[in-house]
Amino acid sequence: MADTTPGPLDLVGITGAVDLPDEDARAAAQQRLDSLAKPPGALGRLEELAVWLAGVQGRCPTTPLERVRVVVVAGDHGIAAGGVSAYPPEVTALMVRAVLAGGAAVNALARVAGATVRVVDLAVDDDLAGAPEEVTRHKVRRGSGRIDVEDALTAEEAEAAFRAGIAIADEEVDAGADLLVPGDMGIGNTTPASTLVALLTGTEVVQVIGRGTGIDDEQWMRKCAAVRDAARRGRPRQGDMLDLLAAVGGADLAAMTGLLLRAAARRTPVVLDGLVVSAAALVAQRLSYRVTRWFVAGHRSAEPAHTAALTRLGLTPLVEHGMRLGEGTGALVAVPQLRAAAEVLGGMATLDEVLAGGSS
Amino acid sequence: MADTTPGPLDLVGITGAVDLPDEDARAAAQQRLDSLAKPPGALGRLEELAVWLAGVQGRCPTTPLERVRVVVVAGDHGIAAGGVSAYPPEVTALMVRAVLAGGAAVNALARVAGATVRVVDLAVDDDLAGAPEEVTRHKVRRGSGRIDVEDALTAEEAEAAFRAGIAIADEEVDAGADLLVPGDMGIGNTTPASTLVALLTGTEVVQVIGRGTGIDDEQWMRKCAAVRDAARRGRPRQGDMLDLLAAVGGADLAAMTGLLLRAAARRTPVVLDGLVVSAAALVAQRLSYRVTRWFVAGHRSAEPAHTAALTRLGLTPLVEHGMRLGEGTGALVAVPQLRAAAEVLGGMATLDEVLAGGSS
Repeated sequence: MADTTPGPLDLVGITGAVDLPDEDARAAAQQRLDSLAKPPGALGRLEELAVWLAGVQGRCPTTPLERVRVVVVAGDHGIAAGGVSAYPPEVTALMVRAVLAGGAAVNALARVAGATVRVVDLAVDDDLAGAPEEVTRHKVRRGSGRIDVEDALTAEEAEAAFRAGIAIADEEVDAGADLLVPGDMGIGNTTPASTLVALLTGTEVVQVIGRGTGIDDEQWMRKCAAVRDAARRGRPRQGDMLDLLAAVGGADLAAMTGLLLRAAARRTPVVLDGLVVSAAALVAQRLSYRVTRWFVAGHRSAEPAHTAALTRLGLTPLVEHGMRLGEGTGALVAVPQLRAAAEVLGGMATLDEVLAGGSS
Repeated sequence: MADTTPGPLDLVGITGAVDLPDEDARAAAQQRLDSLAKPPGALGRLEELAVWLAGVQGRCPTTPLERVRVVVVAGDHGIAAGGVSAYPPEVTALMVRAVLAGGAAVNALARVAGATVRVVDLAVDDDLAGAPEEVTRHKVRRGSGRIDVEDALTAEEAEAAFRAGIAIADEEVDAGADLLVPGDMGIGNTTPASTLVALLTGTEVVQVIGRGTGIDDEQWMRKCAAVRDAARRGRPRQGDMLDLLAAVGGADLAAMTGLLLRAAARRTPVVLDGLVVSAAALVAQRLSYRVTRWFVAGHRSAEPAHTAALTRLGLTPLVEHGMRLGEGTGALVAVPQLRAAAEVLGGMATLDEVLAGGSS
């Protein structure tokens, strides 16, 4: 595809390719829902989901979700050395291996949701020797820069990571994915994510900082200081989203932004997970306001920044369980609700059919 | 079993048989959750669910939910003639047939949740000719009385319906059910349910009356008047829960109460659906305060009475989607979350295992 070639990045083309969902399919879904053997609207949010699914698939009834694909985007962050997390940076690489071994939370929840999991290393600070090529193919660097004092990425790296996200979306959609669930993995990643949310939603730093993996008061104060300093560095660079990602994001966040935009352009629905994915979604929204029409918010995380992001995205989460793990876990809890919505649309009798059954 | 014989109803024995969940299994589950490859508590409500499931199963890790069983309890209500519903009473029997044919919302959502559906006629105003014997076996009468002016049931009928609920729970648990999802079906049934909730929670009638299947302002006023009159009739009869069910409940509500108590006594977990099931749960709670330990609230319905009931039950719903259909549909949307909790508990690596993987 043109924008994955080494030519200049065609950001206008990439963002312009994001269309709106199919209004005819949405209308057909609403009409069918109103004809089913239940009072109009009685299934509440499930009916909205059914309409959304019809719109993004461009079909009514919808086709079953057969290849739900989690893509965990992994990366380390220099800021982790600043004592903002309850865990040391080495845990990122270990968790990537745990995902590959099937033992992480995302694997457990994917099994229940009927999804498969791919983990992709964008900037893990480890060479992940022996990991499959599809894991390391898109690696940009080892660890993104420490955003309170330096850029996360060079301009070239930011572009490479963004292009990697596009390529990953293409790989997955080409392989048949009909629902994408991006997840995050990386010690320290809620610090750049919170910075992006603070900047893109105009929220005070202290209002967006939560307890992440379970930090204490002192770590929380260090995290606030880091986000404050990073936000100061990033504030003048909001005119160019790739430059902002280079300044205070990271290779994982830049890749997720590309992935989200390309998924929407490829008419592939996405379930958003928590803070990190939603921060990338905010960047994608700035690049193309239509992009959120292809998303549902899987859950509301315990992180305050996530609520700020959801408000700006205009999305209401499907699950509110105070989860704060990332990896795509919150989104996966919501996936069965999409299957339920599809089954309502396609698998119920109409009221007329039920009434006719009575007279036969 | 003693209490299903024609001897006098041993209410003390029935309610006394409700024990507490297994504290050892709960403690083991909490310990295992804290050892897994995730920050403590990072899976939020899913972790609470895992602990609950371990407690009610008496095992850690839990066994997979293999026989999730929906029991839709169907019954007509004389009050439906009072213009309190958007649908005529004849729809109840038609919907029972729709469930048997697999075309109702409960069937669609059960397919997604991996559950099977049984519908039981307690008081449908139709002989349901040709329906399987397991559907009609427990029928008490055709339609419960019009509660604004007369008792729903005689004392004998209330006892028979309550015993039927116990028998249904026994049938299902004996057949291997490891999770029960009671549902309701019956035009007009939110009127007795709202009456029970108003009485048992001490809430003003106008505060608990919602739009049910989608009634207009005039129907809403008629429903308020009906509940007001029924509550006046029921208020002096709260000293005896079976007498209250006879006064302002109905055969379906009495059966659900017995079913809920017996499920708990048989150590079988229950996912509560919306207003009607929760009204029966309130009655069961008055009979045995331990009973709610065996329940999770599947969802919060759009009916205001449901929120009043949940508050008194002390249960926080898993899903808040503004559903208002009954049949067990709201509870079924939540069932995959229980499977997710079980898989977290049983299917994840420990942090120690992940750390060891890094050094190998």
